Amino acid sequence: MSLDNIRVVLVSTIYGGNVGSVCRAMANCGLSDLALVAPCELNMEDARKMACSASAILEGRRAFPTLTEAVADCGLVVGATARLGLYRSHSQTPRELAPRIVETAEDHKVALVFGPEDNGLSNKDLALCGQLVQIPTAPEYTSLNLAQAVMICCHEIYVATGRFEPSMEKSEEASSAHREKMFEMWRELLLKIGFMKEDKADHMMLGLRRILSRGNLSEDDARIMMGIARQTMWATDNVSEGENCRSASGAGQ
Amino acid sequence: MSLDNIRVVLVSTIYGGNVGSVCRAMANCGLSDLALVAPCELNMEDARKMACSASAILEGRRAFPTLTEAVADCGLVVGATARLGLYRSHSQTPRELAPRIVETAEDHKVALVFGPEDNGLSNKDLALCGQLVQIPTAPEYTSLNLAQAVMICCHEIYVATGRFEPSMEKSEEASSAHREKMFEMWRELLLKIGFMKEDKADHMMLGLRRILSRGNLSEDDARIMMGIARQTMWATDNVSEGENCRSASGAGQ
Repeated sequence: MSLDNIRVVLVSTIYGGNVGSVCRAMANCGLSDLALVAPCELNMEDARKMACSASAILEGRRAFPTLTEAVADCGLVVGATARLGLYRSHSQTPRELAPRIVETAEDHKVALVFGPEDNGLSNKDLALCGQLVQIPTAPEYTSLNLAQAVMICCHEIYVATGRFEPSMEKSEEASSAHREKMFEMWRELLLKIGFMKEDKADHMMLGLRRILSRGNLSEDDARIMMGIARQTMWATDNVSEGENCRSASGAGQ
Repeated sequence: MSLDNIRVVLVSTIYGGNVGSVCRAMANCGLSDLALVAPCELNMEDARKMACSASAILEGRRAFPTLTEAVADCGLVVGATARLGLYRSHSQTPRELAPRIVETAEDHKVALVFGPEDNGLSNKDLALCGQLVQIPTAPEYTSLNLAQAVMICCHEIYVATGRFEPSMEKSEEASSAHREKMFEMWRELLLKIGFMKEDKADHMMLGLRRILSRGNLSEDDARIMMGIARQTMWATDNVSEGENCRSASGAGQ
């Protein structure tokens, strides 16, 4: 599992709540290896509260006195920086870096290093990072919350693994034949209820075709639209004012 | 400014800290329009603490009794959902949706709607959302912190605007002529210090060429490598054991 090879390293984090939020973000993205460097006295109650169901990552955290030790076994060390300047200009975005991180993590440990909330990584710590990552932000407010920064990086990595299977429509896209049958029923209906006359029908139907063709239309969608047309035709024949509708199928049609 | 047309709508948010974190995430991504629907009694101290420098968004928030009212002027209403099921299967990821959101926001208001921390959006509220968004997560832990979910969506939108200008190397890529001059100096140096003999030189230099060609190499990088070679050649002639190095240029070379 390549994601097991990716370590989140927090240097001198101040707030326990942030450490907890980082744990949850890691769990959301399939990561589990958390290292704290020279950690301050953390408020563990806050940490546990924000970690929610990711408490196993919080409890499994390891502490190292220096960044050098925390990343000693890593083949790729990526440091997060919001500031630019000398030696910080060769940064990439999380999206640009994610494929390289995922590929490297197939065979090697990879560290994602984040600095303290107030000042970020020092130049001394950045020197240990072979690659810098900078998260795109609006120029007016470039300072992200620590856990938000971790989330963006982990999210890009998780997406880059291609593991996420998007929820798919269970129903197939409606076939052209099915669509045409649906439009035929609506044409019949709209003529019957007097919405359009025969000589304008082709033109009016173009509008309905446009509306129903703007997005995908599944077999289920087409069935719903045909059901409405069928029931409306039945109702115009059978339902008087004030009478409750019975279903067309219930009426034996 | 199309980002001004994008509204973040939080339905019945419970924790003030989350509202504050949402404000900061919005500011990081250039958004500013925050609406709260049926807000609970929020801990405003927590909210202000987490909003940091985004307090203007927090103070500018508007409250609406219902979601219907909060999104009444919106041309596109996007609801966030972690769960799948009936009527939730047609969701897209933030990355898939972001271009459509940015495009729509050129001329229309767009709402991004997020439900309460405990249960997410109700089916009644989801019915008001013409489009659903689902954030890719590891299947083992699909529940994101509210502010993290907002951050992912806003980040994808900000990236999709193409506004972020990546930090560029200030120095141009080294020309082939400049590289060859650099390799020639290193060849001379490695022969002089006895690292290799003339008959193995071509082979040994291939290794150095490989190392220095694996990533980009800027004009500045090439100058640094030539400076090291030049100084080393000077030092082998001039520096005795225990003597401090003076610079080659300082020595008038």
